[in-house]
Amino acid sequence: MKAVLVLNAGSSSLKFALYALDRTLAPAPAVCGQVDGIGASPEVTLDTAAGERIREAVATAGGQGEQHRAALEHVFGLLVRHNPALDIAAAGHRIVHGGDHFSAPTRLDEAVLRTLDTFVPLAPLHQPHNLRAVRAVAALMPDVPQVGCFDTAFHRTQPALAQAFALPRRLSAEGIKRYGFHGLSYDYVARQLPEVIGERAKGAVVIAHLGNGASMCALRDGKSVASTMGFTALEGLMMGTRSGSLDPGVMLYLMEQKGMDTKALTRLLYKESGLLGVSGISQDMRTLLASAAPEAEEAVALFCYRIARELGSLAAAAGGLDALVFTGGIGEHAAPVREKVAAWSAWLGIAIDPAANTTPAGHARRLDTAGSRVAVAVVPTDEERMIARYTAETLGL
Amino acid sequence: MKAVLVLNAGSSSLKFALYALDRTLAPAPAVCGQVDGIGASPEVTLDTAAGERIREAVATAGGQGEQHRAALEHVFGLLVRHNPALDIAAAGHRIVHGGDHFSAPTRLDEAVLRTLDTFVPLAPLHQPHNLRAVRAVAALMPDVPQVGCFDTAFHRTQPALAQAFALPRRLSAEGIKRYGFHGLSYDYVARQLPEVIGERAKGAVVIAHLGNGASMCALRDGKSVASTMGFTALEGLMMGTRSGSLDPGVMLYLMEQKGMDTKALTRLLYKESGLLGVSGISQDMRTLLASAAPEAEEAVALFCYRIARELGSLAAAAGGLDALVFTGGIGEHAAPVREKVAAWSAWLGIAIDPAANTTPAGHARRLDTAGSRVAVAVVPTDEERMIARYTAETLGL
Repeated sequence: MKAVLVLNAGSSSLKFALYALDRTLAPAPAVCGQVDGIGASPEVTLDTAAGERIREAVATAGGQGEQHRAALEHVFGLLVRHNPALDIAAAGHRIVHGGDHFSAPTRLDEAVLRTLDTFVPLAPLHQPHNLRAVRAVAALMPDVPQVGCFDTAFHRTQPALAQAFALPRRLSAEGIKRYGFHGLSYDYVARQLPEVIGERAKGAVVIAHLGNGASMCALRDGKSVASTMGFTALEGLMMGTRSGSLDPGVMLYLMEQKGMDTKALTRLLYKESGLLGVSGISQDMRTLLASAAPEAEEAVALFCYRIARELGSLAAAAGGLDALVFTGGIGEHAAPVREKVAAWSAWLGIAIDPAANTTPAGHARRLDTAGSRVAVAVVPTDEERMIARYTAETLGL
Repeated sequence: MKAVLVLNAGSSSLKFALYALDRTLAPAPAVCGQVDGIGASPEVTLDTAAGERIREAVATAGGQGEQHRAALEHVFGLLVRHNPALDIAAAGHRIVHGGDHFSAPTRLDEAVLRTLDTFVPLAPLHQPHNLRAVRAVAALMPDVPQVGCFDTAFHRTQPALAQAFALPRRLSAEGIKRYGFHGLSYDYVARQLPEVIGERAKGAVVIAHLGNGASMCALRDGKSVASTMGFTALEGLMMGTRSGSLDPGVMLYLMEQKGMDTKALTRLLYKESGLLGVSGISQDMRTLLASAAPEAEEAVALFCYRIARELGSLAAAAGGLDALVFTGGIGEHAAPVREKVAAWSAWLGIAIDPAANTTPAGHARRLDTAGSRVAVAVVPTDEERMIARYTAETLGL
């Protein structure tokens, strides 16, 4: 089997998926899985297309870098064992940051990697791991071409105003600007839209990617014109454990009055806030929706209120609203969240059908009533499939 | 003359105005003026209703506290000299922070002052000076009743969701929440609205208070339901020298990569950003509008774009938009700013008449065309007059 290998490397995990080359747009990969616990005791989980699940410990010693390489080697061995005729034609990587340079998926060579290294300070929690996986593949399979797919690239069509902070010019010039993230997801969903909402896909559309990380993107004619996440994955919506947007004066107060330093603030804003912080119960929307505690209700209500506020702001960026699209774990599955957002957004002409909203379905579908001025849809996202497609497209495979 | 003395004390300045008690709603005070340079070489400027301007140096020594008292004494002397029959019936103060406690103007006594002292950490740049002026009046004229008028009070009608950050509950519980500011201005403008826009004043209204400090407020039935400034005067719109809202990750980056501390960040975000930072030319809208430099144009464009984005967000909070009202120095006088905001906001049904927009006028007026779905108005604000009125109302004078 000639295949594209898709890799998404985090600090302690490595997600992988294998798409048959002639089926890079297949709804499901031939094989997928992930390695967890890198840096401690790594373990591979692999799900075959036949529904079989395999679990194996990765034999490894040494530091995190070596463990990443060992994990990758183990994954290759496993894949070949299950596909003796496996021929990896290309590897496609999720890379969080493409800076201002990369506005499309790009074939990776040492020169490109050196440019991507310079973006590490912009995404210190993700970029190093993404690049480490690219170099590990290059060492193991030097002849396999690799493609970088950037979370930021989709947003490079945004007007300068949407990318600017009101900071001194020298800071903007050195790269402190709004890059936007979740671009692989937005591009994937945007490409499905014509089938789901027809002509409106060319109009003013807002996509809400709601998962443990969450952001929203305004599009015109299928292109990003604004997004809620800017310089880092901290801005915008309230998330599972992240605060989202916050008065900068709050940070100054916490530093001055409570002596909090960068590390303490990073922990507070990335790990202890959001749904978890407000509820005091859980970061998981399913748990909160199932809870009768008023604190859980409060956290869900704030999550939805802030989506509705950002929807108004993004409609302003897009010059109106023809469609609202939900995606991501929460966006696809949490009917009460969609219902609350729709209720707050009735002023925009949004009306959804309660039955359509609460019917569970794994495929793209419409939720709006016949009288709704705005189309409302759920479109499942699939970033791995998008990477497979980008990789094949970029290499002309 | 029986009069209400209105005081607005800053770190190095003291503004004052005298309203005849039977005319606390008069468009102009009998006398007004200000002391500048407190802490260095203070000087009083006084403008009489007759259009006379008087300048005098304040003879003083000692620290800033003593200089504040000396300045106040000098002002009293000057006022009595020009109004030999002056009888100060009450003093009304602008006080920036009323915390969660004060949702209306309040008569000030030692117990109230002690509560207000506890809000100093929430507004360290303003609250201490506001309270010092109250205590100086109490020392000089112990029998004169005093009233505190809070910039935050008008916003206490906001739903809890609009006042919440997505931070851990313990932080919200200790007062880290969105208080909102410019409340005296919003209340003043809201009270003028029925005369200017009729019944729509009871609907969904957004007031844009655009000055060197700038914020916006959404109202329903004349009451605040959301505002762009939250915990401090730093959040929300881009301002003369303030950044407004900013990805919290930018601050973490500046701390980590550039070693910036609280003091450096405070200077950057309060003094070096906004119109000044983006243009590199000036913080003054008049200068920027008169400039042909592309950087000036860029700063003005960003200022307007962000107003338009917040307008969409605030309309979501208000459940629609019946009227948009401009006030404050920029809001009242900068026709090109109103024009750009209106152009961005055409999607909301806003259309303004170019002739009405560019006619200079010192009084409240409508700008919307006959076909505009949304009423658009300019209403000059007058926070001193609002304080005079609050003071008389609160004391039943």
